[in-house]
Amino acid sequence: MAMTDPPRPSGPSQRAIPEGDDRERLVCVECGFVLYDNPKIVVGSVARWGDKILLCRRAINPRRGFWTLPAGYLELNETTRAGAEREAWEEARAKLAIETLLAIYDIPRLSQVQLIYRARLIDDNVAAGPESLEVGLFGWDEIPWNEIAFPSVHWALGHEKDVQATGDLAPRGNPPPETSPSTPVAPPGL
Amino acid sequence: MAMTDPPRPSGPSQRAIPEGDDRERLVCVECGFVLYDNPKIVVGSVARWGDKILLCRRAINPRRGFWTLPAGYLELNETTRAGAEREAWEEARAKLAIETLLAIYDIPRLSQVQLIYRARLIDDNVAAGPESLEVGLFGWDEIPWNEIAFPSVHWALGHEKDVQATGDLAPRGNPPPETSPSTPVAPPGL
Repeated sequence: MAMTDPPRPSGPSQRAIPEGDDRERLVCVECGFVLYDNPKIVVGSVARWGDKILLCRRAINPRRGFWTLPAGYLELNETTRAGAEREAWEEARAKLAIETLLAIYDIPRLSQVQLIYRARLIDDNVAAGPESLEVGLFGWDEIPWNEIAFPSVHWALGHEKDVQATGDLAPRGNPPPETSPSTPVAPPGL
Repeated sequence: MAMTDPPRPSGPSQRAIPEGDDRERLVCVECGFVLYDNPKIVVGSVARWGDKILLCRRAINPRRGFWTLPAGYLELNETTRAGAEREAWEEARAKLAIETLLAIYDIPRLSQVQLIYRARLIDDNVAAGPESLEVGLFGWDEIPWNEIAFPSVHWALGHEKDVQATGDLAPRGNPPPETSPSTPVAPPGL
């Protein structure tokens, strides 16, 4: 291949509206395959051991070195609870007793829906899996709040704290967008 | 092409474990594209107008001619509530005020997670969209129980009735598997 040849397209890489559809999808110019890409489901847990919470320090990007909850993509033919259990095992060698759904977070920018369960650790034998640098059990005042990997980890920890304070088990959703003092507040009705 | 040539493979159609992965994915033998197929999110609603429930008679397979709730696949960059609103518009020309989450159903056999919201209709102007033969508003004793399209539609209608009876808004999940008199019941602990 000459050095000036453009890179060969790999898989569905061109946007087109398939026949009978109403929006653009990625299609493969080589074989005509249409990729019906869909939002992804992230399953995870806020897992407790006594009054401590399980966190994992990420060994992979994005946000390598920052702390997160055990969570990841749901696999095919898996229930959401089984997925949350699997992720806790893969990332922290933790065995969970899943309880109620803590929260559903919509992350439309990333085409993600996150389902985060409350859980109890079966024992305190936890250890870093291949995607974690280290794992730990943290009291509320020990959590490394300034080294948290993602906003939704902040949300879930805050929502768990709220459940513990109020006893209200109704699942939470995205918090309202933050307003800073310099941000004008929309008038009522907008 | 000779009549005896095998059909040309279209898109990712061969199973293989990609480098660095731990399970089989579908890959394209022509260009090497790896399809990371994921479970799909179905969003829908049980929408009320007074004491009546909105149902749609399916114009498409599977289960053409049977009654269902307005529901369908979440699209990219869409929130789950916006998806439930869109589906109600597409299938029943219905405008919703979404309320709380009624239920999460895991359908691992189909690699689906269903998120069903409770909703109120803004008005009773409803009409069949392109995927519906007809739509209707049904009181509990008018629902065509023997012509319901899918088990999860039965579950959601039962759960809505239960919410109305008890006032308990906690989201429901899959009902326990049905046992018939001829099915041996597992002893306690199994």
